[in-house]
Amino acid sequence: MRIGRHTFEYQNRPEVIETSAIAGPQEMDGPFKNYFKYYLTDDTFGQDTFEKAEREMMVFVIKNVLEKSKLNSADVDVFIGGDLLNQIISTSYAIRQFSIPYLGIYSACATYVEAMLIAAAMVDSGFRKNAICCTSSHFSSAERQYRFPLELGTMRTPGSQWTVSGSGACLISKSKEKKYPYLKYATIGRVVDYGIEDTNNMGAAMAPACADTIYHHFKETGLTLSDYDKIVTGDLGILGSNILIDLLAEKGYDIGGMHMDCGAEIYTHKPRLHQGGSGAAASALVFNCFLFDKLLKGEYRRILFVATGALLSPTATFQGDSIPGIAHSVAIHAPNY
Amino acid sequence: MRIGRHTFEYQNRPEVIETSAIAGPQEMDGPFKNYFKYYLTDDTFGQDTFEKAEREMMVFVIKNVLEKSKLNSADVDVFIGGDLLNQIISTSYAIRQFSIPYLGIYSACATYVEAMLIAAAMVDSGFRKNAICCTSSHFSSAERQYRFPLELGTMRTPGSQWTVSGSGACLISKSKEKKYPYLKYATIGRVVDYGIEDTNNMGAAMAPACADTIYHHFKETGLTLSDYDKIVTGDLGILGSNILIDLLAEKGYDIGGMHMDCGAEIYTHKPRLHQGGSGAAASALVFNCFLFDKLLKGEYRRILFVATGALLSPTATFQGDSIPGIAHSVAIHAPNY
Repeated sequence: MRIGRHTFEYQNRPEVIETSAIAGPQEMDGPFKNYFKYYLTDDTFGQDTFEKAEREMMVFVIKNVLEKSKLNSADVDVFIGGDLLNQIISTSYAIRQFSIPYLGIYSACATYVEAMLIAAAMVDSGFRKNAICCTSSHFSSAERQYRFPLELGTMRTPGSQWTVSGSGACLISKSKEKKYPYLKYATIGRVVDYGIEDTNNMGAAMAPACADTIYHHFKETGLTLSDYDKIVTGDLGILGSNILIDLLAEKGYDIGGMHMDCGAEIYTHKPRLHQGGSGAAASALVFNCFLFDKLLKGEYRRILFVATGALLSPTATFQGDSIPGIAHSVAIHAPNY
Repeated sequence: MRIGRHTFEYQNRPEVIETSAIAGPQEMDGPFKNYFKYYLTDDTFGQDTFEKAEREMMVFVIKNVLEKSKLNSADVDVFIGGDLLNQIISTSYAIRQFSIPYLGIYSACATYVEAMLIAAAMVDSGFRKNAICCTSSHFSSAERQYRFPLELGTMRTPGSQWTVSGSGACLISKSKEKKYPYLKYATIGRVVDYGIEDTNNMGAAMAPACADTIYHHFKETGLTLSDYDKIVTGDLGILGSNILIDLLAEKGYDIGGMHMDCGAEIYTHKPRLHQGGSGAAASALVFNCFLFDKLLKGEYRRILFVATGALLSPTATFQGDSIPGIAHSVAIHAPNY
């Protein structure tokens, strides 16, 4: 049901039935290590290129989520996903071997929530029965596509973030038992661009879009901060998170005590990575392992999960464009809330 | 309503209320010239790069479809679109100035139908009220990204197609009068890859995916060829169309007499362009100008509109990968059928 210009409400309790994630070696080393069951010891994952390693991570989580859900690929009637590589090749090549109806999407690091919101809409309305959402990113494939050849060993600026290596997939469907976390609201973001041109400061480019989406969620639903245990953002990093908190405070929402950013949290063990992690896998890894677990156990009753994307491209940057930001959110409730 | 693994049926008559298109100079010169109202005389469209020209074409059709529909951008609650450029920058930068909630998608030249099928699903189920779908492509921006620098003046091989310059947008909503063409079924395609490695023969790479989607549409709905006046494919070109006709004949569907390919038709005036047109704009231009007109007048009662995409990327090609194909379809009915 349409609630406002950005927000709609699911009517039939589409649930996140199962999740899977695989983390890179550096991600495995960090604060979420007890939540990651699968990880790479070598970031090539036995492949001869980083792009193929990224693809194989996706193949792994797709197979794993099917196995954990006790489904065959023939039981899945839509796969929705995307990644950061040009023409989203990680996704299109990963899904090739599964013969599942496939919708490719792209909103940079906001892709995981975009996938969830479309999948849940199709499951909620009965168009689809079992939907898999999936994203990936890989430091080495992203770095050499967006920035510099890895061999240069380029120094990183203090505002920079490090692309998370990993992939995550989840199954969205409806269960009889209604014992899984379910999607309640989705808020579709718009492009917000404050004119940031420094491609090493994506947190600043994304924070205004993130504030905009969160603001519209609360304004349109009439909910208040106390309706949520956590507001979880995707990959703003430390600086971007601070900007978000300031921007929302200006609008009367003091989220400081209840905010968590997947990118800022994932590398707290590695301060040399500056502002933390980014990438389409950042929010997918933290949601699929940590947040899903907390929701399943009812330790978090309701979260607002907001993935954030910087819609830049080297081509646009070279032609003098600033960095457009976007953020999409889904409100996810624990089974009994 | 779910009809089968690939196909679902819309329940509440989501309609294509209005369309807009802008064609490049070469496209304007061809068989559809009487249907194109807006066109470029110079393919830079007053911009300093081809990428920005492509973006401006999108901006033009978005403004134009709003104007023709007598809507403000504030009346539109979702914009769904994509294009061929890395990180779909034409779309993300074009929509930046409109402040419309935005879902970015990518399925190469199948993007327009992917946009329509998601938009119609969201409108049908009441999640969104007014959705705009939009794609673009531009010969010069695509050529230098996917193939060679334009300055090389590279000879084209006989199997090649020429990327269509243009952009198209449509508004999907529900009207009180029910006097507009409406979407009845959507069939989501899966990736099909027969191992074609020649990036200058995309028709051959896409035809098997197209045959697969059309086959599933008929198998799952139980409809027969006689239920449609036309089966319109996106941009298979002449060779790809012949392969499609052969593949479907093997499955017992003789579509030869009722098939039309937007890419094959758009350049019949220019045989030196070999197999015809391709690009995300090919199907958008022909649908928005020609097919929409035919449906509105009832000259076509029902069409199956199948956009086709080649999910390749230079990176994947350089790493030895073949070309995965995909096709999505929507069945569109004239108001009284």
